[in-house]
Amino acid sequence: MIPRSGPAGAAFLERVIMLFMVQMQVNLPVDMPAERADKLKADEKALAQQLQRDGKWKNLWRVAGRYANVSIFDVESNDELHTLLSSLPLFPYMDINVTALARHPSAI
Amino acid sequence: MIPRSGPAGAAFLERVIMLFMVQMQVNLPVDMPAERADKLKADEKALAQQLQRDGKWKNLWRVAGRYANVSIFDVESNDELHTLLSSLPLFPYMDINVTALARHPSAI
Amino acid sequence: MIPRSGPAGAAFLERVIMLFMVQMQVNLPVDMPAERADKLKADEKALAQQLQRDGKWKNLWRVAGRYANVSIFDVESNDELHTLLSSLPLFPYMDINVTALARHPSAI
Amino acid sequence: MIPRSGPAGAAFLERVIMLFMVQMQVNLPVDMPAERADKLKADEKALAQQLQRDGKWKNLWRVAGRYANVSIFDVESNDELHTLLSSLPLFPYMDINVTALARHPSAI
Amino acid sequence: MIPRSGPAGAAFLERVIMLFMVQMQVNLPVDMPAERADKLKADEKALAQQLQRDGKWKNLWRVAGRYANVSIFDVESNDELHTLLSSLPLFPYMDINVTALARHPSAI
Amino acid sequence: MIPRSGPAGAAFLERVIMLFMVQMQVNLPVDMPAERADKLKADEKALAQQLQRDGKWKNLWRVAGRYANVSIFDVESNDELHTLLSSLPLFPYMDINVTALARHPSAI
Amino acid sequence: MIPRSGPAGAAFLERVIMLFMVQMQVNLPVDMPAERADKLKADEKALAQQLQRDGKWKNLWRVAGRYANVSIFDVESNDELHTLLSSLPLFPYMDINVTALARHPSAI
Amino acid sequence: MIPRSGPAGAAFLERVIMLFMVQMQVNLPVDMPAERADKLKADEKALAQQLQRDGKWKNLWRVAGRYANVSIFDVESNDELHTLLSSLPLFPYMDINVTALARHPSAI
Amino acid sequence: MIPRSGPAGAAFLERVIMLFMVQMQVNLPVDMPAERADKLKADEKALAQQLQRDGKWKNLWRVAGRYANVSIFDVESNDELHTLLSSLPLFPYMDINVTALARHPSAI
Amino acid sequence: MIPRSGPAGAAFLERVIMLFMVQMQVNLPVDMPAERADKLKADEKALAQQLQRDGKWKNLWRVAGRYANVSIFDVESNDELHTLLSSLPLFPYMDINVTALARHPSAI
Repeated sequence: MIPRSGPAGAAFLERVIMLFMVQMQVNLPVDMPAERADKLKADEKALAQQLQRDGKWKNLWRVAGRYANVSIFDVESNDELHTLLSSLPLFPYMDINVTALARHPSAI
Repeated sequence: MIPRSGPAGAAFLERVIMLFMVQMQVNLPVDMPAERADKLKADEKALAQQLQRDGKWKNLWRVAGRYANVSIFDVESNDELHTLLSSLPLFPYMDINVTALARHPSAI
Repeated sequence: MIPRSGPAGAAFLERVIMLFMVQMQVNLPVDMPAERADKLKADEKALAQQLQRDGKWKNLWRVAGRYANVSIFDVESNDELHTLLSSLPLFPYMDINVTALARHPSAI
Repeated sequence: MIPRSGPAGAAFLERVIMLFMVQMQVNLPVDMPAERADKLKADEKALAQQLQRDGKWKNLWRVAGRYANVSIFDVESNDELHTLLSSLPLFPYMDINVTALARHPSAI
Repeated sequence: MIPRSGPAGAAFLERVIMLFMVQMQVNLPVDMPAERADKLKADEKALAQQLQRDGKWKNLWRVAGRYANVSIFDVESNDELHTLLSSLPLFPYMDINVTALARHPSAI
Repeated sequence: MIPRSGPAGAAFLERVIMLFMVQMQVNLPVDMPAERADKLKADEKALAQQLQRDGKWKNLWRVAGRYANVSIFDVESNDELHTLLSSLPLFPYMDINVTALARHPSAI
Repeated sequence: MIPRSGPAGAAFLERVIMLFMVQMQVNLPVDMPAERADKLKADEKALAQQLQRDGKWKNLWRVAGRYANVSIFDVESNDELHTLLSSLPLFPYMDINVTALARHPSAI
Repeated sequence: MIPRSGPAGAAFLERVIMLFMVQMQVNLPVDMPAERADKLKADEKALAQQLQRDGKWKNLWRVAGRYANVSIFDVESNDELHTLLSSLPLFPYMDINVTALARHPSAI
Repeated sequence: MIPRSGPAGAAFLERVIMLFMVQMQVNLPVDMPAERADKLKADEKALAQQLQRDGKWKNLWRVAGRYANVSIFDVESNDELHTLLSSLPLFPYMDINVTALARHPSAI
Repeated sequence: MIPRSGPAGAAFLERVIMLFMVQMQVNLPVDMPAERADKLKADEKALAQQLQRDGKWKNLWRVAGRYANVSIFDVESNDELHTLLSSLPLFPYMDINVTALARHPSAI
């Protein structure tokens, strides 16, 4: 838990940094019409980029050779994490695994 | 995320309720001297009960037929969760899996 | 086994507290009509809340990132547990795993 | 749940029949002194037979080719089941899995 | 192998008692018409009960929370076991695992 | 089930042919003294060859690249199979899996 | 590798005996028209029997309780094995695992 | 990392040799029209052979008994590897696993 | 592959960004002397921090509840990655899994 | 199967090219004396290089991040493969998996 103070250092501005590794495997039905798939992917991309700009979706990497990603989310609670993930347009087509991360004593 | 305000709704009174299911399987070496094992278990029990009294270790159940438990932790961050778990005397002997829980829309 | 007496402590009022962890993963077909899915979910929610009010479905948590839950049931027998679970509207679409829980010696 | 009445059909005599399949894999260290192993096995056998005579350990079968068994226990609660299993002399050397069984609608 | 003699103890009346644990998981397609499913289940039930009356299907239990069962079959050979199992109306929809059981030295 | 009659075709001479695939993985401790290991292997080999000559251990193949084998046993019952396997000198060091085989309708 | 020479050791008579265990699990779609399934199975049977007569498909056993088989193939190379297996009418519906077998030093 | 110099040994001609083992399992829907499947396979073959000629797809082997392959790719980066794999016509129908390979100290 | 050129596009300034997710599970023997363990951990920490300062070990997070980490490495080749990982003092005690990451089209 | 003729094309000189992917994971005991481990590794290296020079051990790659390798063997039979693998000094310490490879129709 890393309290971070705002400019005034006021305690009530502190916030917890909390990270999760999220692994998403996308399983689109092979017979989904291309138009439908393209729309889903475009919507997913738009939201993914918005969440990155918001600082919530901290990292997003493709797993080489798979329609899958490894992501790092920076959220304030498990509830916020689930709300974000379940709002993704591809959510119904994904197998998602969440790993709670903590600060590592050797991290600089 | 369930912000809970006090009567005055003061921000500094809010707190996030965040739960994790923690599954612990204990693997004590079968040749550990009984005295050493007893000491470890007694220390573990004392700390487990303290954490329950503190409201951090919300539930603790034995898995029938195994030297294992299913637990619910109520913590403020992943860091706090890891700090608690890694401070358990039996930590070096346990295989632990953590599942982040969120509020279920049908929960009352 | 924790016999609990009623106010009069009459033996025939005793009852066994028996808990099970139940993990449910929902696998709705991605092509199920929205109306059908909504109806199923509404019915599921109604029954889930009734069972919670009855004290049978003691806890219900969402697994962050998944259409899945971790639940604690408080029932009088395996038969009652199966009857409840198989009566859920989503039962045909769920993969369910049951873990029998016992009282933990360190639980307070 | 199969309430069974005594001759007078008195409710307080009813009892729940509750069965569990228990799978036990024994992993004795290969370097355990024969004397110690023999003692453990003899104690295990004595208790296993007592529990069978008591009607608690309803069935006990060897898995062909393995130092393992499949058993059916008939107990009144998860707590009783765990108490019995954890009292077995070989308990520290066994990997045990419990499956809660219910009445099957096609059973006669 | 437990040869059992008839009243006259005639060798040709002896028979081998041979048990198998059979675990069946039923996977009916969620879109199977109810009428078809009901017919299959009724036929399955009729045959299951006949085999129980014949002494072949010695035990049949429901796995709590799943459309699955744990069964004990008492047959004279692997061939007879396979013939029985593959004649079940639900056979094409089941994932079946067979475990050969032997007499346990501690069984009474 | 293939009843085989003796010369006189007398029913009491018939016998069931029953085959099992047995997969054995040998896990000798790497620090076992060579002399002890050699003795175990020699004893194992002697018994394995005797059982082959007896027609019980019908086939014995090495799994390429592993200290493991795939075997076919021809026995009269599960009990006989377990008795044979558990009498092997290497039994305490092996992980054994048994698969019950039946006659295949396309076998010639 | 077991080169088998005649007394004169003539090279053209030598041949390598090479065995593979092949495990085939058949997964026919449950909605395949019976006529189509019957045709596939009849073709499969005809080819399986021809390969057995040719000495290539040395053994073919049914796995009790499953639509699966355990087979032993005797071929001259991995290529020949794959050519045979992929020519089977049921090949597109099967999950196949191949295990390379070698001569066991204790085999007689 | 094996820097390879061109004839003039100029540093800017050096390039890193980087290999990946790629395991591809093809899962074409069994009901895909033959014409569509043939077109996909022909396109796959053409691209696979072009990539082999380009030196990118260094080795391509069939897994005996499966519609699967083991391949070695020689690429300059993870990005190039993913670009190549995801451009394959069969990519949407394949389960792909990538293993990063390094130089082995005993390789000659 | 993201070649990054300076304004003049000078080849010798280009460099490939290549990331790997590395998951490390530490399995120190429970009976390792504390002094030896402390020395190993201190050496590990020193090198881990040096590699972070060098920009090679880009991220290092603790997995909550486990003696394990999730890391991101930024290296120039598989060889460099293996050289770094195998030089870690805890390498002989770790189970390490590597996942090659590529640029995600939705990453910003 | 790719018969290759010698200069004279004589049939008896033909030989089958047969490849196997072999995956070896080395598990040296962490408490093995360094001298013993070094001797084993040196012997392993010498033999591995001899087999490479002989053309039997066609490829040898390190798995990045693991004490493991992926290898390609080119042998004349399963027996030859097993003989080679089981002669490796590290054989008692390795977990080895063998995959039979065939010619791929798209290989050039």
